[in-house]
Amino acid sequence: MKKIQIYDTTLRDGSQSEDISFSVEDKLRILQRLDEFGVHYIEGGWPGANPKDEELFKQARKFKFKNSKLSAFGATHRASVKVNKDPSIISLLNAKTPVVTIFGKTWDFHVREALRVSKQRNLDLIYDTVQYLKKKVPEVIFDAEHFFDGFKANPEYALQTLEAAASAGADCIVLCDTNGGTLPGKVGEVVKEMVASFDVPIGIHAHNDSECAVANSIIAVESGAVHVQGTINGLGERCGNANLVSIIPNLKLKLKAGCINSNKIKKLRGLSRFVSEISNLRHSKNQPFVGDSAFAHKGGIHVSAIERHPETYEHIRPELVGNYQRVLVSELSGRSNIIRKIKEFKLKIDPDSPKVAEIVKDMKELESAGFQFEGAEASLELLIKKTFGLHKKFFDLKGFRVIVSKRKEGEEPISEATIMIKTPEKIEHTAADGNGPVNALDKALRKALEKFYPQLKDVTLIDYKVRVLTAGEGTSTKVRVLVESGDGQHKWGTVGVSENIIEASWQALVDSIEYKLLRG
Amino acid sequence: MKKIQIYDTTLRDGSQSEDISFSVEDKLRILQRLDEFGVHYIEGGWPGANPKDEELFKQARKFKFKNSKLSAFGATHRASVKVNKDPSIISLLNAKTPVVTIFGKTWDFHVREALRVSKQRNLDLIYDTVQYLKKKVPEVIFDAEHFFDGFKANPEYALQTLEAAASAGADCIVLCDTNGGTLPGKVGEVVKEMVASFDVPIGIHAHNDSECAVANSIIAVESGAVHVQGTINGLGERCGNANLVSIIPNLKLKLKAGCINSNKIKKLRGLSRFVSEISNLRHSKNQPFVGDSAFAHKGGIHVSAIERHPETYEHIRPELVGNYQRVLVSELSGRSNIIRKIKEFKLKIDPDSPKVAEIVKDMKELESAGFQFEGAEASLELLIKKTFGLHKKFFDLKGFRVIVSKRKEGEEPISEATIMIKTPEKIEHTAADGNGPVNALDKALRKALEKFYPQLKDVTLIDYKVRVLTAGEGTSTKVRVLVESGDGQHKWGTVGVSENIIEASWQALVDSIEYKLLRG
Repeated sequence: MKKIQIYDTTLRDGSQSEDISFSVEDKLRILQRLDEFGVHYIEGGWPGANPKDEELFKQARKFKFKNSKLSAFGATHRASVKVNKDPSIISLLNAKTPVVTIFGKTWDFHVREALRVSKQRNLDLIYDTVQYLKKKVPEVIFDAEHFFDGFKANPEYALQTLEAAASAGADCIVLCDTNGGTLPGKVGEVVKEMVASFDVPIGIHAHNDSECAVANSIIAVESGAVHVQGTINGLGERCGNANLVSIIPNLKLKLKAGCINSNKIKKLRGLSRFVSEISNLRHSKNQPFVGDSAFAHKGGIHVSAIERHPETYEHIRPELVGNYQRVLVSELSGRSNIIRKIKEFKLKIDPDSPKVAEIVKDMKELESAGFQFEGAEASLELLIKKTFGLHKKFFDLKGFRVIVSKRKEGEEPISEATIMIKTPEKIEHTAADGNGPVNALDKALRKALEKFYPQLKDVTLIDYKVRVLTAGEGTSTKVRVLVESGDGQHKWGTVGVSENIIEASWQALVDSIEYKLLRG
Repeated sequence: MKKIQIYDTTLRDGSQSEDISFSVEDKLRILQRLDEFGVHYIEGGWPGANPKDEELFKQARKFKFKNSKLSAFGATHRASVKVNKDPSIISLLNAKTPVVTIFGKTWDFHVREALRVSKQRNLDLIYDTVQYLKKKVPEVIFDAEHFFDGFKANPEYALQTLEAAASAGADCIVLCDTNGGTLPGKVGEVVKEMVASFDVPIGIHAHNDSECAVANSIIAVESGAVHVQGTINGLGERCGNANLVSIIPNLKLKLKAGCINSNKIKKLRGLSRFVSEISNLRHSKNQPFVGDSAFAHKGGIHVSAIERHPETYEHIRPELVGNYQRVLVSELSGRSNIIRKIKEFKLKIDPDSPKVAEIVKDMKELESAGFQFEGAEASLELLIKKTFGLHKKFFDLKGFRVIVSKRKEGEEPISEATIMIKTPEKIEHTAADGNGPVNALDKALRKALEKFYPQLKDVTLIDYKVRVLTAGEGTSTKVRVLVESGDGQHKWGTVGVSENIIEASWQALVDSIEYKLLRG
């Protein structure tokens, strides 16, 4: 079984994403998860260029790595000083990592225009830097920047840059598609040629500008590369880096390459979601392998076949990467879907009960009225519980009023809500203002209920989506509101539909609160 | 130059995305844009399975296609009836399209388990269906479902299914990676073999479950396929279909294959954003080629080099696909866009006026506040007119109040709006109720204005869309409202943004009315 080294650069190249700014603490948490997961290398940062990264390496020295080697990243030494006097090289060594990764220019154009040195001088910079570091650090990796473009423009010179790194003792030479524009056919061809030309192991570092980064990495491995660089969830500037979350299962489960232990791969979805959380980005539903929709099947016709032979409807078993199969309850929903949901929700309900048919009928009516339970499983669970008498009422609405008033042009309107509810204890009548009418109503409802149900204090609204259902009737169309709530431990989605956006939001908010109270 | 046929299935396979539900009107708008853009085929839907799709085909018959051929999609005929008696086949023919695409089973396992017929019977179903349709429809395309998995499991049988389609006269045989699990190396190998085995043109239909759909499509073309199926923005169930928005520029700009006219490719970003809007999905910033970040360079070091030699820092020039570089955010690219719009709107304005720079600046501020003018060109036109003093006020708002009250559970809330406006003639103070707060406000505003401006009686609201802009703050997030209005002759779109949905709707409604009144 071929062994492939996984080199993660989420903390360095991934942190270049436009919307991301990791704190040192964030980076340490990710580093710890990556080590547990078992990537071979973790690139911590560029200590010569970023003071926050120096702090990271300082903190990381206290950390006992179980699986991974930490790497510090930097450039070939400055042309104006000797390698041992270059402050960036000194910072690199001060990071005291077992691995250092050095990038160098391989495209003659960039040597002339960006580095502004002669071609020979650049070869010397590469050679001297790698050779010097090899004396001080156990392992030195050479990232050949812009290699595919450089090789196209001047193959002879590009090869010379790799020869400089190899002869200076680099432990691995990584071919970088820095602009992300190379297509897989070309990647395969060039990698094959380099693997044949060098005894040093060859690696690949791809960017996703052509939407081929994962495929380019896979093709590189099929062409002889043994080291793959990328980031969790494909984070990175522009269109991102190669996504390790897709590369790893492709390598392991399909090409049967040794890279990450099978037990660890089961944590892939968890790792991916963790990095999304820390990055403060929404976890993409349709992300391959790990997204919520990655193994979601639209219901009906084939559900029984999927249940009996899942492997023929799914490219891999979702459990292998910590994901799970979801049968979407949609217009095609039937008995078998509902029974599956009852099992999924772990409800103590007889699946042969005639009430199941009642639920199917209710659901069809609700769906044709515009409800959709795909993103609102908590509302579905409540519906099932109501039908089976497993639901209880926590409060009665005695009335609400929402008022939005604007007094002149250019002024933001004022929104307030009054609400009266009755709990088993007493009647509560209160009011709140908010940013807009739904927010005011949400705040008033919580204010009224939190006295009686303090556990609601943990509940936050994570997402609020509005969808206009029918076109062609202007502002008098039906809207569907989807609310996602969380309490720090769980997340749940609820839905409401009405021609009135306030009413639709109300339904979804009430479902969210009832769901939480029923869970206790 | 090799010619590649682009087959778009956004309206059929793309609409299987978990969060998408297109109305017939949405589909017609997308269809029109796809035809303008110049894809060769537009798959409109599955008339035998979906009554909404039958309506689409009926409506589409009124539409004069300039570039594309419309295709109806369906399955091989049911085993229980003859092909000419199968209601699904009859529906397909009733769609009256110049192209019909038929999918058939190629994986012996699915023949047995899902179709539940003998292997020979399945070959007959394929042959009979294709042959029958060929007599009635100019062009029949055969989608070989699960082909890559089927060919792996039983290559001999999978080949027989293609032979059945080919010998029955199929005009193109499309190899489908239905589960999306095949890696590019394998795709290349299998496509090469099929291209060598058949005289019929071979196509590719890839899904993105391994994050290789774009690369698989490209590799298929490099291996001899001449027909590529996919969707705009890679919409589709699970992890999506192959993304035409990346495939087209890869084919055209890198492999130099003939597919879409260069002038049209400049509309790629516009098309991609349009489909996102209609889908009510956020346009992904880091989407290759067309995302806001796709050509965003982090400032600093190389800016002057990027300015002098952008081609060495970018895999393609962003202008080729209607995108732009963001380091240089560009007075220039902003300016030239505005000047183009001034021409488009036929405004009598000097394009060299310094006020153009003012508009560019205003637009940037509005865009960073969440406005978007792609679906709201009437609001943009008003903005330009205001800056150039070509706008006049028709009324002043003296205040409005919107009240939604619900008196008990199970009751629909009552919505009413009061409004006071001042026209040059007099003050009008009135009120209206409506289905929901926005509808009430809309009705009150029209009621107040129609007395003075009877031409508003012709104006109807065609579409109303709400988009939640920022996640993570529950119901207190910003929303963008897009309103589409029409007066029987023209249609126009306007936009509003606020944390308050009533205020955002108000802005878009006022723009819509002012736009109409200015046109006279």
